[in-house]
Amino acid sequence: MKKITIINGANLNLLGTRETDIYGQKSFEDYLKQLRQRFSDVVLEYKQSNIEGEIVDYIQKAKDSCGIVLNAGGYTHTSVVIRDAISSIKTPVVEVHISNIYAREDFRHTSLLSPVCKGSIIGFGLDSYFLAIKYFISCC
Amino acid sequence: MKKITIINGANLNLLGTRETDIYGQKSFEDYLKQLRQRFSDVVLEYKQSNIEGEIVDYIQKAKDSCGIVLNAGGYTHTSVVIRDAISSIKTPVVEVHISNIYAREDFRHTSLLSPVCKGSIIGFGLDSYFLAIKYFISCC
Amino acid sequence: MKKITIINGANLNLLGTRETDIYGQKSFEDYLKQLRQRFSDVVLEYKQSNIEGEIVDYIQKAKDSCGIVLNAGGYTHTSVVIRDAISSIKTPVVEVHISNIYAREDFRHTSLLSPVCKGSIIGFGLDSYFLAIKYFISCC
Amino acid sequence: MKKITIINGANLNLLGTRETDIYGQKSFEDYLKQLRQRFSDVVLEYKQSNIEGEIVDYIQKAKDSCGIVLNAGGYTHTSVVIRDAISSIKTPVVEVHISNIYAREDFRHTSLLSPVCKGSIIGFGLDSYFLAIKYFISCC
Amino acid sequence: MKKITIINGANLNLLGTRETDIYGQKSFEDYLKQLRQRFSDVVLEYKQSNIEGEIVDYIQKAKDSCGIVLNAGGYTHTSVVIRDAISSIKTPVVEVHISNIYAREDFRHTSLLSPVCKGSIIGFGLDSYFLAIKYFISCC
Amino acid sequence: MKKITIINGANLNLLGTRETDIYGQKSFEDYLKQLRQRFSDVVLEYKQSNIEGEIVDYIQKAKDSCGIVLNAGGYTHTSVVIRDAISSIKTPVVEVHISNIYAREDFRHTSLLSPVCKGSIIGFGLDSYFLAIKYFISCC
Amino acid sequence: MKKITIINGANLNLLGTRETDIYGQKSFEDYLKQLRQRFSDVVLEYKQSNIEGEIVDYIQKAKDSCGIVLNAGGYTHTSVVIRDAISSIKTPVVEVHISNIYAREDFRHTSLLSPVCKGSIIGFGLDSYFLAIKYFISCC
Amino acid sequence: MKKITIINGANLNLLGTRETDIYGQKSFEDYLKQLRQRFSDVVLEYKQSNIEGEIVDYIQKAKDSCGIVLNAGGYTHTSVVIRDAISSIKTPVVEVHISNIYAREDFRHTSLLSPVCKGSIIGFGLDSYFLAIKYFISCC
Amino acid sequence: MKKITIINGANLNLLGTRETDIYGQKSFEDYLKQLRQRFSDVVLEYKQSNIEGEIVDYIQKAKDSCGIVLNAGGYTHTSVVIRDAISSIKTPVVEVHISNIYAREDFRHTSLLSPVCKGSIIGFGLDSYFLAIKYFISCC
Amino acid sequence: MKKITIINGANLNLLGTRETDIYGQKSFEDYLKQLRQRFSDVVLEYKQSNIEGEIVDYIQKAKDSCGIVLNAGGYTHTSVVIRDAISSIKTPVVEVHISNIYAREDFRHTSLLSPVCKGSIIGFGLDSYFLAIKYFISCC
Amino acid sequence: MKKITIINGANLNLLGTRETDIYGQKSFEDYLKQLRQRFSDVVLEYKQSNIEGEIVDYIQKAKDSCGIVLNAGGYTHTSVVIRDAISSIKTPVVEVHISNIYAREDFRHTSLLSPVCKGSIIGFGLDSYFLAIKYFISCC
Amino acid sequence: MKKITIINGANLNLLGTRETDIYGQKSFEDYLKQLRQRFSDVVLEYKQSNIEGEIVDYIQKAKDSCGIVLNAGGYTHTSVVIRDAISSIKTPVVEVHISNIYAREDFRHTSLLSPVCKGSIIGFGLDSYFLAIKYFISCC
Repeated sequence: MKKITIINGANLNLLGTRETDIYGQKSFEDYLKQLRQRFSDVVLEYKQSNIEGEIVDYIQKAKDSCGIVLNAGGYTHTSVVIRDAISSIKTPVVEVHISNIYAREDFRHTSLLSPVCKGSIIGFGLDSYFLAIKYFISCC
Repeated sequence: MKKITIINGANLNLLGTRETDIYGQKSFEDYLKQLRQRFSDVVLEYKQSNIEGEIVDYIQKAKDSCGIVLNAGGYTHTSVVIRDAISSIKTPVVEVHISNIYAREDFRHTSLLSPVCKGSIIGFGLDSYFLAIKYFISCC
Repeated sequence: MKKITIINGANLNLLGTRETDIYGQKSFEDYLKQLRQRFSDVVLEYKQSNIEGEIVDYIQKAKDSCGIVLNAGGYTHTSVVIRDAISSIKTPVVEVHISNIYAREDFRHTSLLSPVCKGSIIGFGLDSYFLAIKYFISCC
Repeated sequence: MKKITIINGANLNLLGTRETDIYGQKSFEDYLKQLRQRFSDVVLEYKQSNIEGEIVDYIQKAKDSCGIVLNAGGYTHTSVVIRDAISSIKTPVVEVHISNIYAREDFRHTSLLSPVCKGSIIGFGLDSYFLAIKYFISCC
Repeated sequence: MKKITIINGANLNLLGTRETDIYGQKSFEDYLKQLRQRFSDVVLEYKQSNIEGEIVDYIQKAKDSCGIVLNAGGYTHTSVVIRDAISSIKTPVVEVHISNIYAREDFRHTSLLSPVCKGSIIGFGLDSYFLAIKYFISCC
Repeated sequence: MKKITIINGANLNLLGTRETDIYGQKSFEDYLKQLRQRFSDVVLEYKQSNIEGEIVDYIQKAKDSCGIVLNAGGYTHTSVVIRDAISSIKTPVVEVHISNIYAREDFRHTSLLSPVCKGSIIGFGLDSYFLAIKYFISCC
Repeated sequence: MKKITIINGANLNLLGTRETDIYGQKSFEDYLKQLRQRFSDVVLEYKQSNIEGEIVDYIQKAKDSCGIVLNAGGYTHTSVVIRDAISSIKTPVVEVHISNIYAREDFRHTSLLSPVCKGSIIGFGLDSYFLAIKYFISCC
Repeated sequence: MKKITIINGANLNLLGTRETDIYGQKSFEDYLKQLRQRFSDVVLEYKQSNIEGEIVDYIQKAKDSCGIVLNAGGYTHTSVVIRDAISSIKTPVVEVHISNIYAREDFRHTSLLSPVCKGSIIGFGLDSYFLAIKYFISCC
Repeated sequence: MKKITIINGANLNLLGTRETDIYGQKSFEDYLKQLRQRFSDVVLEYKQSNIEGEIVDYIQKAKDSCGIVLNAGGYTHTSVVIRDAISSIKTPVVEVHISNIYAREDFRHTSLLSPVCKGSIIGFGLDSYFLAIKYFISCC
Repeated sequence: MKKITIINGANLNLLGTRETDIYGQKSFEDYLKQLRQRFSDVVLEYKQSNIEGEIVDYIQKAKDSCGIVLNAGGYTHTSVVIRDAISSIKTPVVEVHISNIYAREDFRHTSLLSPVCKGSIIGFGLDSYFLAIKYFISCC
Repeated sequence: MKKITIINGANLNLLGTRETDIYGQKSFEDYLKQLRQRFSDVVLEYKQSNIEGEIVDYIQKAKDSCGIVLNAGGYTHTSVVIRDAISSIKTPVVEVHISNIYAREDFRHTSLLSPVCKGSIIGFGLDSYFLAIKYFISCC
Repeated sequence: MKKITIINGANLNLLGTRETDIYGQKSFEDYLKQLRQRFSDVVLEYKQSNIEGEIVDYIQKAKDSCGIVLNAGGYTHTSVVIRDAISSIKTPVVEVHISNIYAREDFRHTSLLSPVCKGSIIGFGLDSYFLAIKYFISCC
C-alpha cells in the first residue's frame, strides 16, 4: 500500500485551540482520522514538530513515501534548511496552508519553500490537506 | 444544476502549442471535455479572453455561479482591476496556475489577486483546475 | 453650449452594488441625472469602460470638450497608456476618486495619472465629481 | 453662523512674492477677502504659522469649526505630529495644495496627512481653497 | 514574397499630432507609405491598437511572418501578457522606440519586453522602424 | 532631593480626550498627581510642548536632573534635533511610549531617539512612565 | 501564589562569561536568586534553551502563568514561529533586552516579536527583567 | 556696508560644551568675535534658534543680506520647510557644517538643503564659516 | 570623405575566442574588413581599449567624426566618466551591444550611457554595428 | 595534541547522496577519514546537526579547541544565534562552503556569519575543509 | 616652500569647452595661472588624468604635499580605489566640485570619497579650488 | 614547471606602509620571496597595477597559467570588466582578500568577481595567498 507523509511545523499542535477565527476549531488529530477514513487505501503517516531541524529530519526520512504534504507553519517564511531538505530528496512535496497567507501580514507573503515544491495549495482551511492528498493519489 | 465558471486569461488560448515544456501539449478545449465528463453533475461554463477588461466583465457576470476558477495568466501580476472585480462580487474565486510561478521569473512571484481570492492552487499542471473544481463541489 | 466629458474606468459600472461601505449605494447613472439637473447649462457627456484601451480612445476623442473628469478606477495605479493619452491632448483632465485612496491598500497610494493631470480631487464620495465640474465651469 | 477654519503652514505667508511661476502673484490675504465676500454666510477663520507645533495648536483649537481647510506646506511630507493632531479631533479636515505636488520633486509625492484627512484637493491654484470650502458648505 | 509585420501599441495612432517635440510631425501612415516604397520586395503588414489584449492577438496571428517590428508604446513598461505572447511564438520580434526612453521618466527605463525580444532599437525617431526592417531583410 | 524631569511632546496635552481607545481616558495631569504621591521623595518636574525646538530646549535645560523620562510623541520618528539634544547632554534619557508603537502604522516602527537613549519602555499605557521613574530611582 | 515565567533564548546561558562589556559579569542564575528574594510572593519559573522550537514549547506551556518575561536573544530578529506561539496564547508576554538593541548592528533593530507582545523593555541591563516583573505584579 | 547673515540651527547654542570631540571647545559667540575682527568691513548678522519655523523666519527676513551662511544642524536632513524658505528668496545661501557629515551616521548623509543652496562647505570645523564668508566677500 | 569612429571597450579584443556561445566566433578585425568593404565611401576609424580612461580619450578625440559607434562592454554599466565624455562633445554617439543585455544578469540591465546617447541598438550580434553605421550614413 | 573541531550544519549528513552535481559523491565520513590520515598529529573532532540550537551548543562547547571549522549549511544565511555563539567565544572560527555560494540563488549570497569569523573559504568542494585545517595548523 | 597638489580627474581637461553652461568658459590652465599668482608663496603642483588608476598613483605620490585638492570628476561616485588611496596616506585631502552635484542627476548625489576626506567644498565654480587652497594655507 | 599567476590590484603596492592595522607591516615583495622559497617547484608570476584595464590585460594574458590568484583590491566591488575578463578565459581564478571584507564597510560586502571565480579565500592576512597557491598545487 502506498504511503503519503503529512508533516506539520511549528504551533500546528495547537490547532483547534489557537486563534480559532483564523485556523478553525478542529484539532488536527480529529481531522486526520477523517482523512484516514476517506482515503483507506493509502497509508497516511503523520509527523509534527516545533523544531526546524526535526522537520528537516522528517523530510529526509520520508524518502520512501510517494509524496509529502508539508505545512511548515511559520518556518515557511524563514527556513533555508527546510528548503534544502526538500531539494535534497526526490519525493515530490506539496506545500499547504490552512489560511490565505497572502491576505495576512507582509512577512507571510514570501515562501522560501514554494520554488522547490511541486506545487502549493493555500487558503482552503483543512481542505488544503485533502486536496493535496487527492493530487498525490491521482498522480503517484 | 449548479454552475462553476472557468475563466482563462491572456495567451491561454495557445495552450498545447505554446512553450510546451512549461505548459504541456494538451489544448484547454480537450482538457475541458475531460473535465465535463468527470464532473457530469455540474455545469462548467468556460470563458477566455486576452483582454483585461473582458475578464473583468466575465467576473462581474459570473455572480450566479457557485464558484469561479480563475487563471488570469500574465494579468495575475499586474491587474488591479481584476482584483477589484473579484472584490466587488460575493461569489468565491479560486486562483489557479498551471506552472509553479514561484519557480520562474521574479515578476511572476507576486500575485495581485491572491489576497482577495478564497485560495490558490499552483503548479499542478492542468490538474490545478481539477483540484479547484473538486473544492467547489465539496463546499458549495 | 460647452461640454464636459466624464470618463469612468473599470468596475465603476457596479457603483451602488459593489462594496457599498466604501463606494456608497447610489448608481452612477442616478447620480449623473442629478448632476445634469444641477448643471443644466453645460453638456455632461458620459463614458464608461472596463477596458484600458477604450479609456484611451475616449480620452483621445474628448479633445473638443472644455474638460475631462476622469476616474480611471484600478487603472489609476498601473496604466502608462492612459497617462500617455492624457499627455497627448490639450484638454485639461481632472482626476477624481470616490474613496480616499491614501487610506486604503499601499498599491492604491501611487497614481501614474496625477503628474499629468491639471489636479486631483480625492475622497469626497460622489461629490468629487461635483467639485471637478464646479472647477471646470468656473475656469473654462 | 457656522465657522470654517483655514490653516496655512510654512512659507505660505510669502504667497504672491515667492516663486510666482508656481504659486501665482496674489497674496493670500487678498484672496481671503474675495473668499469672504463670496461666502458671506459662513465665518472664515484664518491662521498661518511657519512653526510645526503651532499648526498642531491651531488644529487642536479648531474643534468647534465645522471643517478645517489645511495647507500644511512643506510639513505635508514630514510631519507625524500634524497627522496626529488631525487624528485627535473629530472635525473633518480637507487637505489642499495650490500646485500639483505630484508633478514636482519626488519628496513632495508623499503626504503623511492624506490618510487621516476627509479628502484632498490638489493642483487648482488658489481655487483649491474655494473647492474645499464649497465642499464643507454643502455637507456640514 | 516574405512578410514583415509592424505592430504599434497605444497612442501611436496620434503620431504627427501628439507631443510633436518628442515624436515628430509625420503620421505613421505617411511614413508607412515611404517604407513600402523603399522595401518593395517585402510585404509590410501593419496593425495598431490601443488595447493590450488586441496586441496579444496580433502577435499570436503573426506567426507566419518572418519578423515582427513591435512598438508597444506605454505597454512596454507594464505588460506581462505581451511578453508572454512574444515568448509563445517562434517568429523573432524586434522592439523599437521612436524616442530615447532612457532619457525620459524613470518608469520608461524598464522594458518588460526586451528580455524576450531578439533585440531592441531605441531613439532613432521613425528610423527605428527602418533599421528593424533592414535587419529582418538581411537575416530572415 | 533628587529631580527627575518628565518631558511630553506633541499632542500629549490632549491625553484623556484624544483617541481614548489607544491612549486611555486619564489626563496626564491627573496621572502626574498620582505619580507625585507615589514617589514623594523625588521632585518630578514636568514639561510639555507641541513644538520640536522647545523640547530641545527642555532637554538642554534638564542637565541637572538625575534622569529624563521622554515621550516625544510623533517627533520620535522624525526628529534628528531631539536626538542631537539627547546626545549633547550627560543626563541619561529613558524613552517611553504609552501604546505599543510596533503594533501600529509602519512609520511608527522606527525611533530616531532609541539609539541614543539609555533604554526604552514601550506599550504599558501610563505605566510606562511609572516603570521609567522606578528605574531612575533604583539606579541614580 | 501567582506565577510569572521567565524564558531566555539562545546564548543567554553564557551570561556572565560572554561579551561582558555588553552583557555584564553576572550569571543569570545569580541574578535569578536576587529576583526571587526580592519578589518572594510570586513564583518565578525559569526556562532557557538555545533551540527555537523549545522556546515555542515553553511559551505554549506557560499558559497558566499570569505573565511571561521573554528575552528571545538572537531569535528576536528572525523567528516567525516564536511570534506565532505568542499570538496563540492568551497570557501576556513582555519582551525584554539587556542591551540597547537599537544602538547595535542594523539587523538587531527589527523585532518580529514586539508587535504581538504587551510591551517592550530594552536596554536596562538585567534591570530589564526586574521592571517587567514589577509590571506584571502591579497589573496581573 | 554690506551685510552677511549667519544662521545657526538646533543645538548649535551648545557649541563648546556639546560633544567636544566632534564639535570642538570654542563657543560660537567667541568665534563670532574673531570673525567680526577679521572681516571688519562687512556686517555679520547672527541668528540662532532650536525651532525649525523660526529658522524659516530668519531666512525670509534676510532678503536684504548679500548672502546667508546656514548651518541648520539636525534640520539639514529632515526639513522641507527650510528648503522651501531658501527657494523662496533670491539671496544666495551657503550651507556649512562643522563636522564631516559623510563620515557619521547614515541619516546625516542626505541634505535636503544642498540642492537649493549655492554651494556647500563641509567638515572644516569652525573654518567652514570662515570659508563661506570669504566666498561671499569675493563674489557679492 | 566623412568619418565614423567605432570604439570598443573592455574584453572586446577577445571577440571570436571569448564565450563564443554568447559573442560568436568571428574576430572584430575580420568583421571590420567586411564593414569597410560594404561601406567603401566612408572612413571607418577603429579604437579599442580595456582601460576606461582611454575610452574617454578616444571619445574626446573623435569630435570631428560625423558619428561614434560605441560598445563600451562592461563599462556600460558602471562608468560615469564615459557618460560625461559623451555629454561633453557634440558628435552623436550610438550605443551598440552584440548580445541582448536585458536577457542576461541583472547588473547588465542598466546602462549609464543610454540616456546621453542618440540611441541604442542591442542584441543583433555583430549586425548591431552594421545598423548603427547604416543610421549615421543616412542621417549625417 | 591540539584539537580542531569541525561542525557541519543542516542537510550535510546527506553528503554524497544529495544533489551530487553540486556537492559531489563522497560522504563526509569517508572524507573525514582521509583528513584524519593526512593530519595525524591533530585531533579532528566532528559534530553534525540539523538543529540550529544544537550547533550553538557545539560552538559553545568547543572553547578548548584551537580552532573551529564551521559549515553551517542553510543556517549561514539566516542564523543570528549562531553568529552570537561565535561572538561569545574566543576560539577562532573559519567559515567553509563546499559550493560557490555566490554563483547560486540570491539568498545564498549573504552570510550572517562571515563578519564574526576569522575568515571564509568558499567553493573548493571538500578541499575547503582541508584548507581551513591547513590554516589552523600553521597559525594556532 | 610648502606644496599643495591639485588633482583633476576625468574630462576636466575639457574645461572651458565642455558643457559651458555648467562648467564655465575658462580652461583650468588659465585658472591655474591666476591661482599661482595669487598664492605666490606656495607651490601649486597640478596633475590631471582621465584614468582612474593614474589618479590613484598621483595621490600615492603626493605624500609629501601639505594637502591635496581633489576633483575626481565622474570617478567621485564610483571609485573605491581612489577612496582607498586617500585612506592609505596621511596627507589631508579636500574634495572639490565646480558644480553643485546635489542639484544634478541622482547618481551624482553620492560621493564615495567624502567620508575619507578632510572636508568638501561644492558648487562654487572654480572658486571651489580657491577656497580649498585658502584652507590648506591657513591650517597646514 | 607549471606556472601560477598572482595579480594584485589597486593600492596593494603600498602593502606594509598603508593602514598597517588592517593590512599588516610586510610588503608584498618580501612576502613573495617567502612564497617562492616555500613553493620552489612552481613558477610564481607576479603582476600589480592600479589601473583596472591593465588587470584585465594581465588576466587575458595568463591563459597559459594553471591558475590565477587574484586580489583585485577596491575593484572587487565595482568592476564588471574584470569579471568579464575572468569569464572570458578557461584558467581557474581564485579570489583572495587579506582582510575580512565582510567585517568592514557595507560597500565591501559585495564582490562582483566571486560568482565567476572558482572560489574565494578571505580574511587570513597574507596567508590567503598561501592557501590559494596550496589549492592550485593540489588540484592543477
